[in-house]
Amino acid sequence: MLPTPRTERFPANTPAASQIFTTVLSQGPLTRLEVARRAGLSPAAVTKAVRPLIEAGYLTEGADEEARPALGRPATLVRVDGGRALFVGVKVTGDEIIGVVTDLCCRIRLVRHVPLTDRDLGAVLAAVADLVHELRAEADEADEGGAGVHGLGIAVSGDVDRGEGTVRYSPFLEWRDVPLAELAATTTGLPVTVDNDVRALTVAEQWFGAGAGRSDFAVVTVGAGIGCGLVVHGRVVSGAHGVAGEIGHVTVDPSGPPCHCGNRGCVEAIAGDAAILRRIRETTGLEVADSAEAARLAHSGVPGAREAYARAGEAIGRGIATVANLLGPELVIISGEGLAAYDLFAEQIRDTFAAAAFGSAARCDVRTRPLPFTEWARGAAATAIQSFIRADS
Amino acid sequence: MLPTPRTERFPANTPAASQIFTTVLSQGPLTRLEVARRAGLSPAAVTKAVRPLIEAGYLTEGADEEARPALGRPATLVRVDGGRALFVGVKVTGDEIIGVVTDLCCRIRLVRHVPLTDRDLGAVLAAVADLVHELRAEADEADEGGAGVHGLGIAVSGDVDRGEGTVRYSPFLEWRDVPLAELAATTTGLPVTVDNDVRALTVAEQWFGAGAGRSDFAVVTVGAGIGCGLVVHGRVVSGAHGVAGEIGHVTVDPSGPPCHCGNRGCVEAIAGDAAILRRIRETTGLEVADSAEAARLAHSGVPGAREAYARAGEAIGRGIATVANLLGPELVIISGEGLAAYDLFAEQIRDTFAAAAFGSAARCDVRTRPLPFTEWARGAAATAIQSFIRADS
Repeated sequence: MLPTPRTERFPANTPAASQIFTTVLSQGPLTRLEVARRAGLSPAAVTKAVRPLIEAGYLTEGADEEARPALGRPATLVRVDGGRALFVGVKVTGDEIIGVVTDLCCRIRLVRHVPLTDRDLGAVLAAVADLVHELRAEADEADEGGAGVHGLGIAVSGDVDRGEGTVRYSPFLEWRDVPLAELAATTTGLPVTVDNDVRALTVAEQWFGAGAGRSDFAVVTVGAGIGCGLVVHGRVVSGAHGVAGEIGHVTVDPSGPPCHCGNRGCVEAIAGDAAILRRIRETTGLEVADSAEAARLAHSGVPGAREAYARAGEAIGRGIATVANLLGPELVIISGEGLAAYDLFAEQIRDTFAAAAFGSAARCDVRTRPLPFTEWARGAAATAIQSFIRADS
Repeated sequence: MLPTPRTERFPANTPAASQIFTTVLSQGPLTRLEVARRAGLSPAAVTKAVRPLIEAGYLTEGADEEARPALGRPATLVRVDGGRALFVGVKVTGDEIIGVVTDLCCRIRLVRHVPLTDRDLGAVLAAVADLVHELRAEADEADEGGAGVHGLGIAVSGDVDRGEGTVRYSPFLEWRDVPLAELAATTTGLPVTVDNDVRALTVAEQWFGAGAGRSDFAVVTVGAGIGCGLVVHGRVVSGAHGVAGEIGHVTVDPSGPPCHCGNRGCVEAIAGDAAILRRIRETTGLEVADSAEAARLAHSGVPGAREAYARAGEAIGRGIATVANLLGPELVIISGEGLAAYDLFAEQIRDTFAAAAFGSAARCDVRTRPLPFTEWARGAAATAIQSFIRADS
């Protein structure tokens, strides 16, 4: 018999309470007064929200030992007890599944990689269920407090509707309209959150990474696909119909190469790994096996290979400028497995962005940050944490 | 001597209180319970916030006379007393200033248009001050309650930093780094809010127009410039450095015509009024005086004129698809003086949008809505109302 999904409810049943918890989680430890200030709520609201969270063990309160004043008592800080609940995050790529167990503060406790040999839905579901089962068993064994796994997050590239829990279209897995959250809840017995992989990574960056404390930033990922997670007004943009952040399908050259989406000259059709390989093959006539070889050719100075990366850099820079012109974020983080070849197109990204950004949109801080797939799986865990603590989701 | 700016403070000094007032303003009249539900706050918070607002006369409470039940008492509704405060909104175009007086509910009471013969800063400031002076005098005379004008909003196209109150760059006025809010406060004696004109229009649409009750939508304006106001997560996007919504400077064809911003193939460089005229002149050799004549030529079937509008439509459709792919709004409202020729490019906008929108982003409802310059001036008044009632701005 399958285990029933846990029904333990998080004791923050108003938007204000989950906002307060999120503030402590992503910015804490903090004094109650500082929590109130940052959450834009009254100290009384904080006191009211904090009490049941302390009683249930999700928050603790204690002296600030790191900043003990010379005279008088140290400040009392509220912090999240990370060990109170565990979560599993899974990132599914075209050829691998990466799973992590994190605590409530999204600190990674366990990591496991398993190869994905079959992209068929049933095979992927079985592989995810096996991985989750193993991770849970290992986590439960190691976990003295017996916190247990409270939720599972699964991150998949493509058009994913988190609200509905469905993968509408995943080009790499060749899935359409898969009710993944429901299916995985059945096979794992856990509450499941499904999200687009770049949005999941963005949640982790917003709460626990380079975006912490920032209300407007973007994560742009380069590699097999070109993706983008957007945080606007302090929240990750999901789109009214589940699509958002599709920088890969922003047209940067209507007479450019065809894209798998049916259009021409999308950023991904010029700057995705496959597009770079295709371009190098076309211009050099060389048989290029993979991205590593493409980068080697470019590093060794083969003009056609260098040019393919330069074009990719221009397309990415133009895509980032489009994001900046429309949203004016303070920060754009470039990441993804494509960073391995970053030196081959960094200059073109920078120059094209600077030229195409309008007015003060060019002041946006554009920087790179390596985030391996383990971090993407951590992002999936972050979405599970988000679902667990949010009264409204 | 100049009158001192009014210092009457709005009695909602917490973010929750201004959120409650905004909910009643844009969605009311509502019962207290419904206000609490829509604002995501507790009924107790609503009661606490409503009391001083009723005492100060900004809100009133009374029976719902329109929905009187057959038995029992009608529901008690909270509503804004629009007559409690007046505001002036001014939209500055390249050749005209449009001024309105509105009440607190942004209902227009007076409208005045004055020609702008000189775009020099001093001349514009003097013209705005005269217009505001006349409008105030007339409003005070007509206003029995003596509510008085509580603020002035000025809407200008270009790169405007509302927070700083400066016009960073206005192509039509040829202004750079003008501290307009401070200057106009000195000449008019009113608290002044300066914003980009399309963002101001978007505020009016969000609170009082087609966007009321929607958390994610866009307003795209076509005409002399191509602009865009974005509402994401229920708030108008301003950008970390003041630039946002610059759909006009999204590149849609890197080998396209040069743009005044220094790039090539921006939406505005293909679809702005001047770009359409230039294209018709180039392809037909005809001397086309203005947009009205250009539209006449296209309507009479001149191929070069029809083609110029078709190209413009494609550029606009591609720009809107870019907004949809990145943000996934539920609604895009197309407006602006360019709507006069809308039949000449409606099909191309629709078809290009449908082709370039990625996956379910294409489900976005794209519709037109005529919003004459009076509505833009009303948008400026809406920004002044916003500044007045928002504790945090």
